Amino acid sequence: MKAAIVTIGDEILIGQILDTNSSYIAKALDKIGIGTHEMRSISDDREHILNTLQELQNQVDVVIVTGGLGPTKDDITKKTFCDYFEDELIENASVLEHVKNIIEGIYKRPITAINIEQAQVPSKAKILFNKMGTAPGMWMEKDETVFVSLPGVPYEMKYLIDNEVIPNLVAKFKRPFIVHKTIMTYGRGESLIAEQIENWEDNLPPFIKLAYLPSPGRVRLRLTAKGIQELELQEAIAQEVEKLQELIGDIIVGFDDDEPIEVVVGNLLQSKNLTLATAESCTGGKIAQVITSISGCSAYFKGSIVSYATEAKLNILGIPPELISKYSVVSAEVAKAMALAVQNMMHSDYAIATTGNAGPSKGDADAEIGTVFIALATPKFVVVEEFNFGQPREKVIDRTVNKGLELLYKEILKN
Amino acid sequence: MKAAIVTIGDEILIGQILDTNSSYIAKALDKIGIGTHEMRSISDDREHILNTLQELQNQVDVVIVTGGLGPTKDDITKKTFCDYFEDELIENASVLEHVKNIIEGIYKRPITAINIEQAQVPSKAKILFNKMGTAPGMWMEKDETVFVSLPGVPYEMKYLIDNEVIPNLVAKFKRPFIVHKTIMTYGRGESLIAEQIENWEDNLPPFIKLAYLPSPGRVRLRLTAKGIQELELQEAIAQEVEKLQELIGDIIVGFDDDEPIEVVVGNLLQSKNLTLATAESCTGGKIAQVITSISGCSAYFKGSIVSYATEAKLNILGIPPELISKYSVVSAEVAKAMALAVQNMMHSDYAIATTGNAGPSKGDADAEIGTVFIALATPKFVVVEEFNFGQPREKVIDRTVNKGLELLYKEILKN
Repeated sequence: MKAAIVTIGDEILIGQILDTNSSYIAKALDKIGIGTHEMRSISDDREHILNTLQELQNQVDVVIVTGGLGPTKDDITKKTFCDYFEDELIENASVLEHVKNIIEGIYKRPITAINIEQAQVPSKAKILFNKMGTAPGMWMEKDETVFVSLPGVPYEMKYLIDNEVIPNLVAKFKRPFIVHKTIMTYGRGESLIAEQIENWEDNLPPFIKLAYLPSPGRVRLRLTAKGIQELELQEAIAQEVEKLQELIGDIIVGFDDDEPIEVVVGNLLQSKNLTLATAESCTGGKIAQVITSISGCSAYFKGSIVSYATEAKLNILGIPPELISKYSVVSAEVAKAMALAVQNMMHSDYAIATTGNAGPSKGDADAEIGTVFIALATPKFVVVEEFNFGQPREKVIDRTVNKGLELLYKEILKN
Repeated sequence: MKAAIVTIGDEILIGQILDTNSSYIAKALDKIGIGTHEMRSISDDREHILNTLQELQNQVDVVIVTGGLGPTKDDITKKTFCDYFEDELIENASVLEHVKNIIEGIYKRPITAINIEQAQVPSKAKILFNKMGTAPGMWMEKDETVFVSLPGVPYEMKYLIDNEVIPNLVAKFKRPFIVHKTIMTYGRGESLIAEQIENWEDNLPPFIKLAYLPSPGRVRLRLTAKGIQELELQEAIAQEVEKLQELIGDIIVGFDDDEPIEVVVGNLLQSKNLTLATAESCTGGKIAQVITSISGCSAYFKGSIVSYATEAKLNILGIPPELISKYSVVSAEVAKAMALAVQNMMHSDYAIATTGNAGPSKGDADAEIGTVFIALATPKFVVVEEFNFGQPREKVIDRTVNKGLELLYKEILKN
């Protein structure tokens, strides 16, 4: 069972919009044992779309297309689908009803000719009901291949994938099992790890594949097993993980089902009934932002003081001016004072504080670009670590966020 | 002049990692007049890579490949390139020197066999020096097509694109001019705008293309002109923009060269010597985070109080408990009080405050999911607006961030 994912839209090809749809769809397919063979982004061009559909039909069982279903003239997917399937557009009464409900009922304005066109669908298409918007999803089949067309708006696409596409694929196809296990390591580079586990890697059974996923500050190792017997796959993976533990157990911090660190940390805080606050300078609120991107975080997150300006460190966090003039704003001493201040103000069990110079030019302090201090206040003490995360700005910020959450994670696990 | 961008890596095809490289490369190519014909993400599989290179060679002038250059066993791009170009790997002395400097000089550890392998390059390749990491970029040519191979780590790829690939492409190819103009509108849906400008759109000259780019809360219209005479293109675009002004001038808020709103607002604040602070509840620090993602923001951004818990609204912002018990935390009154409090605490000219229910379940207040109040404190007064941004959580947060910055932008422009 193989799938291809196609994104249609010139805005992606000029780099104006980042395609996040394909990643979401690939993950959803992977969970039901359908591997994605290829992703393509192509232009709003009839010939290009037709050629792509034809090429992929010969290679995969399922082609999922997003984009090009909007009400405007640059969107031609629907008409091109008709050409490909030798079909014609007809008005679908239930889609029209739904479009009317949205435009007249929710937006409170009269329906226009362009809105009515959205209810036109290829006559052979099975309609996938789009609760989140006006453009319906469509499911069509040609020879042995399924073609699905979805709107490009992310939350509409997500709704249709979860509620229509995946259930329909599960019902139609017999699929193999895919079992993943991701091992999170920190503190050692990709090439050193590779040397250490070389023998083990060479002797992996043929149905298990290893991938290295390096990212700022950590390397994840992903094992993937594919086969007919789910239990057998899980056992084989567990055995290999055990062998890995013997080889590099000292740098393994956890296992995840591709959960980001903010989810792992959030679950841990919640399970132990602990709370967190942050005082952020160089991260500018990004630690708070990633934590609050997870619903339910109000159970453990109190808030943050983003003291970007030195003035805010003085006035709001109450950092003594002497401390700053003696050590500068980018210092271990100021990081510690920030963590303790916000822990106290927010009445939280733990607090993370960041101060550093993310670059590209020097700010209020003389610290080298890339220098960051991260302090962690626990119920009993406060610790601080110094890092140099290099350049550019984006990487310094992201590594600080990850490292801050990692320090917190390790500290809570100790207790 | 057409290009294709290929990303190699199973981690993208299972949805574990989002491909942000292709978008960056496409934007850089677009700026020098090279259109991206197609993007593909393919697996770490020899046959798949070879077939893809062959197919694209017949369609485009430049193929840029990222990924698969790491030091570990799952990375096979380099060997497959050798097969495709009927070449062999040889050790490159200057690359080896560079790898040694990084591993021994910066990481302070002995160089390993795997590190040394990174200095192996195809003998026919022109080496693109990777200042940011150990894997070099490679430039090869076959018949009329240029093939470039770059590491997948984003900041290494960016460095090589900016400093090696683009200058080399500019030197090698004569390219047409591409002129874009993006018109930012807010407050009217895509289909209504399309109706209003239908006649104008039908009469656009053939070398100008229009695209609709709807995103939460606004629609951008992008005009693209392609041709030999840059000046002519610019004049033609300017004429069309003038006609658009007559048709929908009431909803046009600005023009951008694809600059995100945080850049536009930042430039405006800086040029007028004004400062900003935020008090964030439902956005959890995301307004602060997007603002501080821009370097130089310390000139206009003071900081943020992320008062996620009600307790933080009381204790840190000093919102009167009576106000909260009378109106609830998700209310116009509390939003206003938050904006005024943070403006006062941070001594800023402007302040944005957000409070709402981002969902998916109800929080500290009874407000409907999706309800958000955004308050804006100016040097003279405070205003508040109520919105319902629907679902899901991610969309509510993003629309609130965009809308908050938009309200600020419009307000400053009035003065």
